[in-house]
Amino acid sequence: MKFFSNMSIENETLQLNNHSITDLASTYGTPLYVIDGDYIKDQCKKLKHSFKHKTLETEILYASKAFSSKAIYSLVEEMDLALDVVSGGELHTAKASNFPMERIYFHGNNKSIKEIDMALNAGVHRIVVDNLMELEYINSLNQHVNILIRINPGIEAHTHEYIQTANDDSKFGISFESYDLNKAIQCCVDSKYINLKGFHCHIGSQIHEASSFEKAAAVMLDQIKLLEHKYQLNVTELNLGGGFGVYYSKDQPITDFGFLTDLLNQCYGYISKHNLKIKKMMIEPGRLLVANAGSTIYEIGFTKTTLSGKNYLFVDGGMTDNIRPALYQAEYEACVGNKMTQPSQTLYTVAGKCCESGDVLIKDILLPTVKKGDFLVVASTGAYNYSMASHYNRIPKPAVVMIENQTARTVIKRETYDDLIRFDC
Amino acid sequence: MKFFSNMSIENETLQLNNHSITDLASTYGTPLYVIDGDYIKDQCKKLKHSFKHKTLETEILYASKAFSSKAIYSLVEEMDLALDVVSGGELHTAKASNFPMERIYFHGNNKSIKEIDMALNAGVHRIVVDNLMELEYINSLNQHVNILIRINPGIEAHTHEYIQTANDDSKFGISFESYDLNKAIQCCVDSKYINLKGFHCHIGSQIHEASSFEKAAAVMLDQIKLLEHKYQLNVTELNLGGGFGVYYSKDQPITDFGFLTDLLNQCYGYISKHNLKIKKMMIEPGRLLVANAGSTIYEIGFTKTTLSGKNYLFVDGGMTDNIRPALYQAEYEACVGNKMTQPSQTLYTVAGKCCESGDVLIKDILLPTVKKGDFLVVASTGAYNYSMASHYNRIPKPAVVMIENQTARTVIKRETYDDLIRFDC
Repeated sequence: MKFFSNMSIENETLQLNNHSITDLASTYGTPLYVIDGDYIKDQCKKLKHSFKHKTLETEILYASKAFSSKAIYSLVEEMDLALDVVSGGELHTAKASNFPMERIYFHGNNKSIKEIDMALNAGVHRIVVDNLMELEYINSLNQHVNILIRINPGIEAHTHEYIQTANDDSKFGISFESYDLNKAIQCCVDSKYINLKGFHCHIGSQIHEASSFEKAAAVMLDQIKLLEHKYQLNVTELNLGGGFGVYYSKDQPITDFGFLTDLLNQCYGYISKHNLKIKKMMIEPGRLLVANAGSTIYEIGFTKTTLSGKNYLFVDGGMTDNIRPALYQAEYEACVGNKMTQPSQTLYTVAGKCCESGDVLIKDILLPTVKKGDFLVVASTGAYNYSMASHYNRIPKPAVVMIENQTARTVIKRETYDDLIRFDC
Repeated sequence: MKFFSNMSIENETLQLNNHSITDLASTYGTPLYVIDGDYIKDQCKKLKHSFKHKTLETEILYASKAFSSKAIYSLVEEMDLALDVVSGGELHTAKASNFPMERIYFHGNNKSIKEIDMALNAGVHRIVVDNLMELEYINSLNQHVNILIRINPGIEAHTHEYIQTANDDSKFGISFESYDLNKAIQCCVDSKYINLKGFHCHIGSQIHEASSFEKAAAVMLDQIKLLEHKYQLNVTELNLGGGFGVYYSKDQPITDFGFLTDLLNQCYGYISKHNLKIKKMMIEPGRLLVANAGSTIYEIGFTKTTLSGKNYLFVDGGMTDNIRPALYQAEYEACVGNKMTQPSQTLYTVAGKCCESGDVLIKDILLPTVKKGDFLVVASTGAYNYSMASHYNRIPKPAVVMIENQTARTVIKRETYDDLIRFDC
């Protein structure tokens, strides 16, 4: 079993960063998201080590949609990362955690006028402009703005349709071959206010093939060369986005960051060969930093065997705290956290407590035979679990506990039933 | 166009219950859920008219998971409906709206011990027991409890896998042919505390074939006859659940409630022929009461045409306020609420503002050509929209406005950015 960061076993009980999961459950209640802060810091260090270059300046942006919270923002800030935010709410969270605005990039395909105002007033570092209309709107403000333009490089990455973001029909970005791009760049060239610093692309999520990123980089560099020449641009920044795959279950490899060094070298080779002006390269990992740092502790409730022989194990959460299995057919690994040394002999379907057949977390998993009161611990729930959580069936959102330097602390409070009706008039 | 309840058009603007959607948008902001309270009351009246019988007592339970809120609970209470709740949170909401406990049924496949305590202390009318372990737990409390047992009748209804709830592998209910059912009924027979009032079944959601419900009823009655005889039971109540399909788009018929009268007559024929003791029949519509009562008003933001010619229209909400298209490939109808008399000439894909390719609300829809600031109104969003809403990308949940007797009022307040970080420590 290799799927929990900083795990150990003591008296047949799973320890996360030396904290027994039964102690965590009794102290903080269940369901409980547990975030390994040390792991996130370690990932930041490894990324910074791999994504650096002797000549090119590099910057790593945490893509906060994976898990936006003050605690995570503080942690990546401490690690000197920059931040991308995609909404006023994420920017508000960043402001509340005192994240330096000069390290914030503002994304989004449909930023509202209020959000653009908010970002400009806050002084975010770059607006990543997603489409021509947005650019024309920003230009109409007659305000000095530093931007990147999000490009759709037309790379098909092998991943779920919902998270493949750069095909020719994408809602994101402007395609190189499109007339919109020419208009956009001409707008920047003509503008007294807009400073086009560079370009951004993002080809999808949960991509495991380094070749997809290499292809995207090659397309971006080729086209930047042409655009520089055509429009006499001074393109100094290239942001290659994120989408780096993480390990969820046995079919998915654990990411080795070495490919980032290769990617950077490959880019530098092209940049120096063609005398491009690019000085700064960026990437935007989100899931890669937090997914494997998270675990969810559930208390097991009732179990049953159906007429056709399927064994159900019900947990006290479900699609409300992890919609990824229902939404993307995502697969997860799990263990019975208080029976770590017992043989896995029963095939279970792990289902949640929502009033919905689709509320199944794991379709088939071999586990020790469980009883009510045991704890199921699901691995790799750090990304897109809390951030996509709902109140379906009026189920309160779980607490989030972060463990850092051996110390566990609540970073997001558990909601109460009263919180659920707080907005009801 | 037939898809908005109580709609009219004035100066090319859509009116919902005589309220102009542009006025609603400017008064309450967007995105905005608008609920037609008059329509819900009207549906309640029609249902009560169709689901009644000269001899059998009947009860209609609102299945609150479709949309749980104090305002809706008050409204269905006013209409003399009963209520089913599936969690402590829904029960808490019912308590907060002073819903009479003697009309509340408590459901759920994995009720927690706290929830069962809460329900018993509150004095809910019936616990609908979902599995053998739950029954044995409740029996161990040595407390008088009136229950229904949820049966899985093994009917395959034609609907989405996620919402098909009664196949032999379902997480819900006990199959008639299973050994668990014999144990469960023997437990009730032997118990001094448990009073088995009857049975419940629910075969799925969004089912349009009356024959599916007739089949389920026939199976239930046949088996109740056998069980009554075998265990000398006094089964007085039969709850046939819900799952009645509603209209979302052109492939789905508008439900005619006549089939409920036929269903009741068919059941009564069997009950009287076989001298069954059933005196009370129940159904549990949820979506049927609220889905077509709801509309969502969005402000249209940026638009763009992709390289391959797809026209995107971006709205200021998305999968955060309506996850059904991404989760179930659900289809919705919509109109440009301020251009109702203009010809539909442009084929659009309606996408939300979330940082995700899957955030598409409508894949292809012909609409008048739109500009920024126009309003898109999506129909039939009353069920499983607000109830499944998330804070993904830290987007606040929209407000809910209910219109009743010509008067619009906020029934759920819009969340602020500060609300989003309220639980962050």
